[in-house]
Amino acid sequence: MQRDSDAYLAKKQFFNTLLTVYGRKPVLEALQQPGVEVYRLHLAQSNKRGGIIDEILAEAEKRNAEVAYHDRAALSRISKNAKQDQGVAVDLICQKFTTATDYLTRPSSGSCNLLALDGITNPQNLGMIIRSACAGNIDGIILPEKGCAQIDPLVIKASAGTVFRAPILRTTEPLARTLNKFRDSQYSVVGLSSHAKQTLQAYSGERTVFVLGNETDGVSSATQNECNHWLKIPMNNQVESLNVAVTAALIAFR
Amino acid sequence: MQRDSDAYLAKKQFFNTLLTVYGRKPVLEALQQPGVEVYRLHLAQSNKRGGIIDEILAEAEKRNAEVAYHDRAALSRISKNAKQDQGVAVDLICQKFTTATDYLTRPSSGSCNLLALDGITNPQNLGMIIRSACAGNIDGIILPEKGCAQIDPLVIKASAGTVFRAPILRTTEPLARTLNKFRDSQYSVVGLSSHAKQTLQAYSGERTVFVLGNETDGVSSATQNECNHWLKIPMNNQVESLNVAVTAALIAFR
Repeated sequence: MQRDSDAYLAKKQFFNTLLTVYGRKPVLEALQQPGVEVYRLHLAQSNKRGGIIDEILAEAEKRNAEVAYHDRAALSRISKNAKQDQGVAVDLICQKFTTATDYLTRPSSGSCNLLALDGITNPQNLGMIIRSACAGNIDGIILPEKGCAQIDPLVIKASAGTVFRAPILRTTEPLARTLNKFRDSQYSVVGLSSHAKQTLQAYSGERTVFVLGNETDGVSSATQNECNHWLKIPMNNQVESLNVAVTAALIAFR
Repeated sequence: MQRDSDAYLAKKQFFNTLLTVYGRKPVLEALQQPGVEVYRLHLAQSNKRGGIIDEILAEAEKRNAEVAYHDRAALSRISKNAKQDQGVAVDLICQKFTTATDYLTRPSSGSCNLLALDGITNPQNLGMIIRSACAGNIDGIILPEKGCAQIDPLVIKASAGTVFRAPILRTTEPLARTLNKFRDSQYSVVGLSSHAKQTLQAYSGERTVFVLGNETDGVSSATQNECNHWLKIPMNNQVESLNVAVTAALIAFR
């Protein structure tokens, strides 16, 4: 029994690392990223050989990836985007992808800085946030399945390909519920507000989730209720707010 | 003679503060910005009254702005964009706009941080750079007329309206020539490079122009030749570069 359960857990953890990319050019570009690991390439049987399809197959072969052929309907179920998959999808193994819940069960050591995304709907912003977080000092990006842009070709492009290496912590729950679990695990959940007394620069908490809110409406009230600390970024010239991807970068490189 | 020359200079300096915005919605939104100063509203005689034209006229009136009527051809010469002006343009007075050359003639006091934009062609990035620079600690943004996106409706939107308050230093020369003048005035001209030894965080120069390069190709070689100091931003996870607007923000808030 114990063994079965271990095997089941390992399998589940493996599937949590998978990212499905779809569309001919996005798939080819993903396969060309240095160091990217491929689990399985999916092709619609209707794809004509030649051109970009052959290039995709050659890249998959280089990486000893399994190739699976499907009818159009089955392929759409895999890509979850029949309109844009162009008969091609690939499952990539992103070692640093996990779920927020699994992340909390890991033994943690010392300082830990996370971002939590609350209603970041613009793919450009999501990609930029991932790029800066990956380059800077962020240990995880909590990305809810609902209310945020998801990792699609636009996001991959805006991330300059860094998404495959980024520590993305996916969650299917409402963000507020996930944040509550982090608070239970002794994390500070930090919101940004121009009314806060302490500045981001002066802050030195060890285990922190920084919440980033929607581009227009800011942090939702359910999420605000989970914030137990507030910080401000002082601004000149009566500027009221920064672009959310810029805020993420200031956190990642503070 | 001295008087004439003073009057001429004052007039020239005044014209350097003008920013022409065109297009019905962009003009209305610009007029609605708090604190914006209007010099002159230009309308094509062919505009039908009512709707947004009336709203624009009402906003102009509130600000005691002159209204000038033109034929379509004359209006296009003012907007410099016949395709997108929709028969409407407005000259705004942006107090902090000047030319790079005029900026150098001003008496300077203590620390001074400037950005110089070299081939920033993406309006979204230009707008974000202006927004971050305006909110952070940047005293001027050197914006060449050639090779960079110019301040158009997309840039104004991406700047979240901050462009009207931003210290934009326009230059009609090639950027390298302008940078050379700043070097002559005891500014350090700083480029960013992953090969540099010193980090941006450790840098404490007093009078500095930070050069930001094109989104794909980086800083041009002519501009590189004018850089007399190089800094790096250390990055994790083998990320090679940051978005240029993110880099601008890290400079503005360091």
